[in-house]
Amino acid sequence: MKLMRVTAPEDVLNIISKQFAPLEFHKVSLEKAGGYTLGKTINAPENVPDFNRSTVDGYAVKASDTFGAGEGIPAILDNIGEVLMGRVAPSIKKGQCCLVHTGGMLPEEADAVIMIEDTELTGTMMQCFRQVAPGENVIHSGEDLKKGDVALLKGRRLRSPEIGMLASLGISEVDVHRKPVVGFFSTGDELVDYSKTELRPGQIRDSNAPALLYLAKQKGTTVKYGGILPDQFEVFLEKSRSMLDEVDFLVFSGGSSVGTRDYTARTIEMLGKPGLLVEGISIQPGKPTLLGSCDGKPVLGLPGHPVSALNIFAIFGKAIIDCLTARELRHFRPSVKAVLARNISSRSGRTDYVRVKLEETPGGLSAIPVFGRSGMLRTLAEADGLLVIESAKEGLSAGDSVEVEIWD
Amino acid sequence: MKLMRVTAPEDVLNIISKQFAPLEFHKVSLEKAGGYTLGKTINAPENVPDFNRSTVDGYAVKASDTFGAGEGIPAILDNIGEVLMGRVAPSIKKGQCCLVHTGGMLPEEADAVIMIEDTELTGTMMQCFRQVAPGENVIHSGEDLKKGDVALLKGRRLRSPEIGMLASLGISEVDVHRKPVVGFFSTGDELVDYSKTELRPGQIRDSNAPALLYLAKQKGTTVKYGGILPDQFEVFLEKSRSMLDEVDFLVFSGGSSVGTRDYTARTIEMLGKPGLLVEGISIQPGKPTLLGSCDGKPVLGLPGHPVSALNIFAIFGKAIIDCLTARELRHFRPSVKAVLARNISSRSGRTDYVRVKLEETPGGLSAIPVFGRSGMLRTLAEADGLLVIESAKEGLSAGDSVEVEIWD
Repeated sequence: MKLMRVTAPEDVLNIISKQFAPLEFHKVSLEKAGGYTLGKTINAPENVPDFNRSTVDGYAVKASDTFGAGEGIPAILDNIGEVLMGRVAPSIKKGQCCLVHTGGMLPEEADAVIMIEDTELTGTMMQCFRQVAPGENVIHSGEDLKKGDVALLKGRRLRSPEIGMLASLGISEVDVHRKPVVGFFSTGDELVDYSKTELRPGQIRDSNAPALLYLAKQKGTTVKYGGILPDQFEVFLEKSRSMLDEVDFLVFSGGSSVGTRDYTARTIEMLGKPGLLVEGISIQPGKPTLLGSCDGKPVLGLPGHPVSALNIFAIFGKAIIDCLTARELRHFRPSVKAVLARNISSRSGRTDYVRVKLEETPGGLSAIPVFGRSGMLRTLAEADGLLVIESAKEGLSAGDSVEVEIWD
Repeated sequence: MKLMRVTAPEDVLNIISKQFAPLEFHKVSLEKAGGYTLGKTINAPENVPDFNRSTVDGYAVKASDTFGAGEGIPAILDNIGEVLMGRVAPSIKKGQCCLVHTGGMLPEEADAVIMIEDTELTGTMMQCFRQVAPGENVIHSGEDLKKGDVALLKGRRLRSPEIGMLASLGISEVDVHRKPVVGFFSTGDELVDYSKTELRPGQIRDSNAPALLYLAKQKGTTVKYGGILPDQFEVFLEKSRSMLDEVDFLVFSGGSSVGTRDYTARTIEMLGKPGLLVEGISIQPGKPTLLGSCDGKPVLGLPGHPVSALNIFAIFGKAIIDCLTARELRHFRPSVKAVLARNISSRSGRTDYVRVKLEETPGGLSAIPVFGRSGMLRTLAEADGLLVIESAKEGLSAGDSVEVEIWD
């Protein structure tokens, strides 16, 4: 019996980042660009804002006209009118001011705005009870972005602030890396489609496919489901080959038995070069994972147990999708702090992902391990998140402060 | 000049959870159910699994037949064949075994599986070099879920594990709470659509609308954009009224000047009862926020500055969406740990959201505040996340350990 050669999770991530290149980029309209990665650096075609704007409701003034003013000795200025929103501001002379709203344009001669609450208006006489410094309450032309400056570097993922920035520059179309199409097959003769109501003894509904398809869609990909592959090698290979032609990333799910694992491994070897790269990962749950690169396209063979399959796809499937979409390599792993409720043992040399439920207690969150086999999906459904025990550790003790990654 | 009455952020969240009820539920197919909240509790219509399954590749045995077996004194069993995947297992008698793959059905008489690596097969003679306990390497019928047990309680959000669980039960349609349709208006005469390439002096492109629409879509809602409302009260009110008829949640963006703020506040008062509930929040950025309830529908008036508008929508807009979709009230706020790179001052009595950039250093992540006005979207685009300074604090010092919520 051949022993499984396992690769450490961090080495698998390195292999992924070396093997797989971002997909080509294409143009999308700004309203559809959220979540994509920028394919080309964008320079600001103009200043943002393009004129000096007030940041408050008040009066645009020459700051020097207010010097020395205070509660008891107001500066007196002549109000010549109002800056209409979206319109050019009127000119002011020394000793004059004009009403300006938040976001309104400053007269060319004005260099500050005094807030309305520091003034009092009688007819056109504006009393100003405070002095303002030059630049006060003003956002200057080009202060947000200067014409020609780099607005966004290629490789930046477009979140809501980036979408807003591009809109402020009048950019309504951007070059972004295409998001991958991910193909899925389920494998194993015991599986039947989940829509089947009556099962024969020995049959199991395919729960991995819908769960994985949703997970892949959550990561922004388009999915293509090829159904359940039979345990016949020729069919298995042929269907895989034609699916791989149509997708950017191929995933096999299920087939935890040695037989289907062999089929999957042989198929990966035959689909393209260099073929199989990883034949097991020192991780729990999810050890019997296969990863290959077939003429540049990633192929992932997930373990059959549902919890293992979801865990592996959430970590390594996501990393592959990040590579294909040119997402920056900065992976923050946000977590919540909790106190471990029970001891957990772990084997050194293996990274353990422990399912935990979080409960609020007077002392903060308590992390309660959900024990149970990785074949039981309920154990993941009951968990709020996962707690990672690094491979060097041999477990954790009740009362330890831990960080839990929320499963969303 | 009337002072703004401000409400603490936690009180605003309480108001939201008291005022707004979940939308009605409707049926969706399982493949579209991800991200929704369950409207009815689901009980398991059958056992999962429905038969005793092997969790390994090995031989199904009566455990008692292996008692006393070891490396030197193997138990000898007669292998009667193989359990085909998806088929009924053959019967075994005392002294017999049969080959079973991971996930395969156990013969009715078998109560354990011995792993293949602990055996040696010669013809039909299987030597067994270890003893196994009853139940070893077996997942029993109903062990994941028992018929009649609660599978998922109403109010549960459907993540990938829940989707998988429902599939394993053969449930292909579920009752879920409808996701809200969110209507958006931009306000302010200075604004023009972002697709406009040439601006007149004093004009600004509406960057909030596309940024907010994307943020709302990220939260799973359907959006409806009504365009830029002019500064004419009758038009403002009429358009708002007809939009509110068509949506579940109405948002006004922009209009940071006192004038548009007044329009928005008056409109909220006139759209329905009880009307305006919050006219300012003790939060920075985002203080001049309006919140109302108009005959049961939430109406939010966002501040005009882009960073403030996004920050407020990310916190309170999200809370409103969570209420409307009946999302559980457990809000974990995952964050990454970092060390603050500079002092930050903060005014006591106000919750501050500080934009920070994260940089990797040998000592871990360093959080570098991105300073700049909330009118400058670039400051949020440069930030990886936000650091919250609670209202009781008067600032943080360089070197402090902080938690940063990633802006995604």
